Amino acid sequence: MLQPPPAEPGMMEEEVDTPALILDLDAFEANLDAMAALLAPTGVKLRAHAKTHKSAVIARLQMARGAVGQCVQKVAEAEALAWGGVPDILVSNQVVGAAKLARLAALARIAEVAVCADDPLQVVEIAAAAEAAGVRIPVLVEIDCGASRCGVEPGPEAVALAERIAASPHLRFGGLQSYHGSAQHKRTPGEREAAIAHAAEVTRRTVEQLRQRGLDCPIVGGGGTGTFALEAASGVYTEIQAGSYAFMDADYARNEAPPPFRQSLFVLSTVMSRAIPGVAVLDAGHKAVAVDSGLPLVHGRPGLRYVSASDEHGKLLVEDGAAPALGDKLRLVPGHCDPTVDRYDWYVGVRQGRVECLWPIAARGAMA
Amino acid sequence: MLQPPPAEPGMMEEEVDTPALILDLDAFEANLDAMAALLAPTGVKLRAHAKTHKSAVIARLQMARGAVGQCVQKVAEAEALAWGGVPDILVSNQVVGAAKLARLAALARIAEVAVCADDPLQVVEIAAAAEAAGVRIPVLVEIDCGASRCGVEPGPEAVALAERIAASPHLRFGGLQSYHGSAQHKRTPGEREAAIAHAAEVTRRTVEQLRQRGLDCPIVGGGGTGTFALEAASGVYTEIQAGSYAFMDADYARNEAPPPFRQSLFVLSTVMSRAIPGVAVLDAGHKAVAVDSGLPLVHGRPGLRYVSASDEHGKLLVEDGAAPALGDKLRLVPGHCDPTVDRYDWYVGVRQGRVECLWPIAARGAMA
Repeated sequence: MLQPPPAEPGMMEEEVDTPALILDLDAFEANLDAMAALLAPTGVKLRAHAKTHKSAVIARLQMARGAVGQCVQKVAEAEALAWGGVPDILVSNQVVGAAKLARLAALARIAEVAVCADDPLQVVEIAAAAEAAGVRIPVLVEIDCGASRCGVEPGPEAVALAERIAASPHLRFGGLQSYHGSAQHKRTPGEREAAIAHAAEVTRRTVEQLRQRGLDCPIVGGGGTGTFALEAASGVYTEIQAGSYAFMDADYARNEAPPPFRQSLFVLSTVMSRAIPGVAVLDAGHKAVAVDSGLPLVHGRPGLRYVSASDEHGKLLVEDGAAPALGDKLRLVPGHCDPTVDRYDWYVGVRQGRVECLWPIAARGAMA
Repeated sequence: MLQPPPAEPGMMEEEVDTPALILDLDAFEANLDAMAALLAPTGVKLRAHAKTHKSAVIARLQMARGAVGQCVQKVAEAEALAWGGVPDILVSNQVVGAAKLARLAALARIAEVAVCADDPLQVVEIAAAAEAAGVRIPVLVEIDCGASRCGVEPGPEAVALAERIAASPHLRFGGLQSYHGSAQHKRTPGEREAAIAHAAEVTRRTVEQLRQRGLDCPIVGGGGTGTFALEAASGVYTEIQAGSYAFMDADYARNEAPPPFRQSLFVLSTVMSRAIPGVAVLDAGHKAVAVDSGLPLVHGRPGLRYVSASDEHGKLLVEDGAAPALGDKLRLVPGHCDPTVDRYDWYVGVRQGRVECLWPIAARGAMA
């Protein structure tokens, strides 16, 4: 269940047991600083997404640099953050079912906790949970700004749902959730600009219609690592919900004009077999590094290409002269950072080759 | 880290919190019985693969039906099983690095623990760990019988490595590991037969050459859920290493003449959004159900098709008349059972709609 830490502070990186999740602290801190600097002149706030890092430690480092709070996708993630001292949490997602909502309402006694809705029935359920717990819960209306997954139609449908929320004595209308997930990985800047121009326009229209009905939006939230500068410049959004910017991954790096952040997250792995000519096998397969957005890249070792992942094995093709030795430890750049983090119990924080800290991934597996 | 159980014994399945890993106990027990019955007349033993189930409870149920022990891929998995009372464990994989090997050697005091090698350097390291711990460790030679991943060439190279093992006072030669992983999911019976005919032939030749050098093979192991009947009928293999047979998954079901087992493993999920016409959204994305071998299938609900997985959302296309209600709980058949199990801390054992038991997934995340 909980796995023992693969390292101790003071070790050299080569001594870390594998597979391990390595956080390059210099690059990580540079990313946090860069995002704070990029958003400062816009006046738009960061509410960083903890679905990526799942760590109250990292949440607090982001908030120390000006983030107003955190987003999560799951109640169990909100619990892990609130228990770890994070005071302001938005569940940027629908929560359905009395058991989960009772947990959410209980959290509202120790932190600001808001949640999203895209259906009147959800609103009824959230109000019932808030009433039972004796708390008042802010609820944002999620609108479909282009991803066609969750969210009501922008405009009158959103206004109607907001009015239901505002009418409940146990709820407060929290604003709009308007996140365009699929825009983050559109490959060209032009595609991303077009997607976010549309998202911002339907969001702006909905904000205005709400205002005409006397409903102000305390939060207009959205934006991820691939597009946050566009939302921040739109004049509509008040909060940015980027998460991956802290770590980056191989899929974001494939964007044209990729986000201006450094790769700070790696899976450290060991060469465990060299028996087949031209092949090296690592101890990190797809249980250790997520492959939903493509295979990992081998970092800093030219001539080695990760070509297939099975459950516990990663197969490398080896060019002439690039052969690693049995036992060599290689850094992999994950294809997708969020689900890779979710495979581990510990961050191994490394600075200039030496382990500096271990941080628990407190919301690992927090799917409820 | 460790997530709370999503259910209690006695609950109805509809009351289980989601996402949850459901084990249909009738189907599961039927699968264990079926494998025991299929292997009994062959005289070949089952050493079930715990990389699939990661549970000492399930291991003991398999052994109660005649399995001689368990396979694992990782030292940390071997620990979880040995600590849970499993007496005979084969690490069907290479183990590289002094820290891991010290852990393996320590286990040899409470269980029979064997390991594989495909390199003389590994043999030196295993012997050093065994000597330091004052134990003697059986080591199998892994041969490449067709998958081109790990394993020495069958024949003289394998014999030479076996002789190194046999020559060490701290090791015992344990036999041959000859697993053809990629054969399991070849789609036609003819392709699978051809692959295993080759694997059996090179294995047979190697066994004979070893015998000529005075080295008997206590174990000749291999075979998975897709091909085990072929290995069992070969006259060469002494042990079958199937794991998925206990659960099954959508990818095995895509084989022509699929394995003769029932689907017993499901991810239970909740419909959390119905805002987009023709779409329903589940609370189980690829953090909750592995997609490396294809998307999950919706079980028992015609007209619903799982068409895309994001981190925390599963998008269903809904045919006319098939619309689920918000809050409906749906069973998903995972595309791939092994990595799906690894996402959870608990099996929720269900019999005829009612929760009967909770079993910890003790080796979840056991990657070291």
